[in-house]
Amino acid sequence: MLQSSRTLGATGAQAHGHTVELGRDVPLKLDCGIKLGPFTVAYQTYGRLNAQKSNAVLVCHALSGDQYVASTHPITGKPGWWHILVGPGRPLDPDRFFIICANVLGGCMGTTGPASINPETGKPCGLTFPVITIADMVRAQAMLLDHLGIPDLFCVIGGSMGGMQTLQWAAMYPERVYAAIPVACAARHSAQNIAFHEVGRQAIMADPEWRGGEYSLHGTTPRAGLAVARMAAHITYLSEAALRRKFGRKLQNRSAFTYGFDADFEVESYLRHQGITFVERFDANSYLYITRAMDYFDMSADQRGGLAKVFHDTKVRFCLVSFTSDWLFTTSEMREIVHALNAVAADVSFVEIETDKGHDAFLLDEPELHATLSGFLNAAADRRGISPATAVREASR
Amino acid sequence: MLQSSRTLGATGAQAHGHTVELGRDVPLKLDCGIKLGPFTVAYQTYGRLNAQKSNAVLVCHALSGDQYVASTHPITGKPGWWHILVGPGRPLDPDRFFIICANVLGGCMGTTGPASINPETGKPCGLTFPVITIADMVRAQAMLLDHLGIPDLFCVIGGSMGGMQTLQWAAMYPERVYAAIPVACAARHSAQNIAFHEVGRQAIMADPEWRGGEYSLHGTTPRAGLAVARMAAHITYLSEAALRRKFGRKLQNRSAFTYGFDADFEVESYLRHQGITFVERFDANSYLYITRAMDYFDMSADQRGGLAKVFHDTKVRFCLVSFTSDWLFTTSEMREIVHALNAVAADVSFVEIETDKGHDAFLLDEPELHATLSGFLNAAADRRGISPATAVREASR
Repeated sequence: MLQSSRTLGATGAQAHGHTVELGRDVPLKLDCGIKLGPFTVAYQTYGRLNAQKSNAVLVCHALSGDQYVASTHPITGKPGWWHILVGPGRPLDPDRFFIICANVLGGCMGTTGPASINPETGKPCGLTFPVITIADMVRAQAMLLDHLGIPDLFCVIGGSMGGMQTLQWAAMYPERVYAAIPVACAARHSAQNIAFHEVGRQAIMADPEWRGGEYSLHGTTPRAGLAVARMAAHITYLSEAALRRKFGRKLQNRSAFTYGFDADFEVESYLRHQGITFVERFDANSYLYITRAMDYFDMSADQRGGLAKVFHDTKVRFCLVSFTSDWLFTTSEMREIVHALNAVAADVSFVEIETDKGHDAFLLDEPELHATLSGFLNAAADRRGISPATAVREASR
Repeated sequence: MLQSSRTLGATGAQAHGHTVELGRDVPLKLDCGIKLGPFTVAYQTYGRLNAQKSNAVLVCHALSGDQYVASTHPITGKPGWWHILVGPGRPLDPDRFFIICANVLGGCMGTTGPASINPETGKPCGLTFPVITIADMVRAQAMLLDHLGIPDLFCVIGGSMGGMQTLQWAAMYPERVYAAIPVACAARHSAQNIAFHEVGRQAIMADPEWRGGEYSLHGTTPRAGLAVARMAAHITYLSEAALRRKFGRKLQNRSAFTYGFDADFEVESYLRHQGITFVERFDANSYLYITRAMDYFDMSADQRGGLAKVFHDTKVRFCLVSFTSDWLFTTSEMREIVHALNAVAADVSFVEIETDKGHDAFLLDEPELHATLSGFLNAAADRRGISPATAVREASR
């Protein structure tokens, strides 16, 4: 479905999912060599593009995220995953910025992915869908910007896999990025992280209901496998300290052990809930494809000069954020990016936020994250001559 | 099958699995309240009990271990899991000590567990087997010592879950323990560790071949689920640094990505191998029961005075060992035990070994572990008047 550009300027409260068909004339050339097109991208926007087209911000979502960054999720009914940061009076204020968030290629919330129907067969693609990369996701986003008539981004921002996309944007389209904010990510996926992803994929593929990826043809879904994958991943999003503080060894609605395999401990009950609810909103094959894209991510793989070479001569203004207790994407991995950027004399600031909340901190109400983003975004926007938000203009009268 | 005591004194090279029936007259009263008996314990011994019966050492195995501490494993054909430490000229020298290692209660290498036949039904127990605890495992070991005519142990030693049993021995039977060496363990299982165990259990129980625990009745086994459980657990046994050093992002017998879901990365291939081979030698229900026993482990749960109270007035000589990169059982958890022992003026030494090998270090050839154990064991044995090994005696002539 081709979406006209009149959807531009929809404001947060009224925003619905938009979809656009891209790549009909010029397909997207994927890293694997396959040409993809036409394909659909589903996205949300908040605020209005200004006359200078200088205030566009692209928010990139994480593995299990989607375009509902600041809108009620259509399945769960929960607030957008970054509503804390995106909204009136917040660091990403739709009154100042035109904010775009698109479901990634390979996703399952409207953008083309393994659940999409292959027009040649009339059946869902399943494992015939090509394996995509973080760079492919970014290429699709760039095509979306072309369609929206946005020459360049004031800012690209994201956490975790969203941070990977942010780095990839700065590396691949430096002339289209004024500022970049990669949060809690890395320039390459570590062996430990690949290992955890592989456990999740094996859990899904071990579920007989997965049926070689053709579960939807059989009217089934590998619920149990996907739930286990989510449970394993969820542990990596939290710190040991957060688990101890939040749950410790507290029992779940009981005063003594049951000497059985029910969820005696609160932490077990919590994890089971995470697994069960995830299955309601996420596609198992998308989980395979998106984890694979993260595993393949290594910005300096093709660069003899290492990571610094990737960012040679960059004019992008960087603000990197890490969290002390994040063991999925550690501060030392973020620092490696900072060192590479310093080595090419890039404009870079780096904030390591003290928290015991682990990787999940990037999605939570962390005042220091809020302050860091507000400060960096507003200073950069002022420098670029983007008008302040109305409320700010009124307050300064 | 009742095993006569003539199996005593079997030496390493000739040792086979011994089994003994215990608890026929006086059953084992489990923590869950059920009385278990008769039940079988399978064990291995190395060396000879001296005339004073003062040189017995009990080695306690970890979650996936067994009694084959220094003998070729009957299924895998691999050397015993601690052959590096147990054998002639090694810290646990059968020429000086009488070394016993028994498969834990709930295990699957000959000791009674969920795979055992319930004589009342003629069918494998499955989930009708009572949930056991670390203390129950220790009670069964004490009954084995009674059967072997061993009044007390010169030393009890073990790593991981073996360390939990070691602590439990010192707490429950202080008069029967001269020295205790808990390695890489904790006085209670953490929320994060419970969470990882729960992922493993859910992976097993999600496998349709598990069939409510009655898989053997159906001639099946939940291979895929158990393999996923093992894969998830295996990541926790290694450090991030070890994974990086050992595998990094190296590809498996290929020069480029396949853009598929085969094991492109060496770390994926390694993990899959760990999962597949584990299934050959381990019972899925035993995995459920033994992980549950570890989850339930909390030495100070019933003690108002905390951990120190548990060891009040202890005469046991302790040597604790932790590894810097172990994130499953951290140095800080070991240090908590040391503090509790210090608070009751116990005889305790503590060694934190610098290594990047993670929790697995306790099973590996770590020279500092070797030296620590040799030093502590020989000094304590000298103090107890246990004759040195023949080789040592000959060397000192």
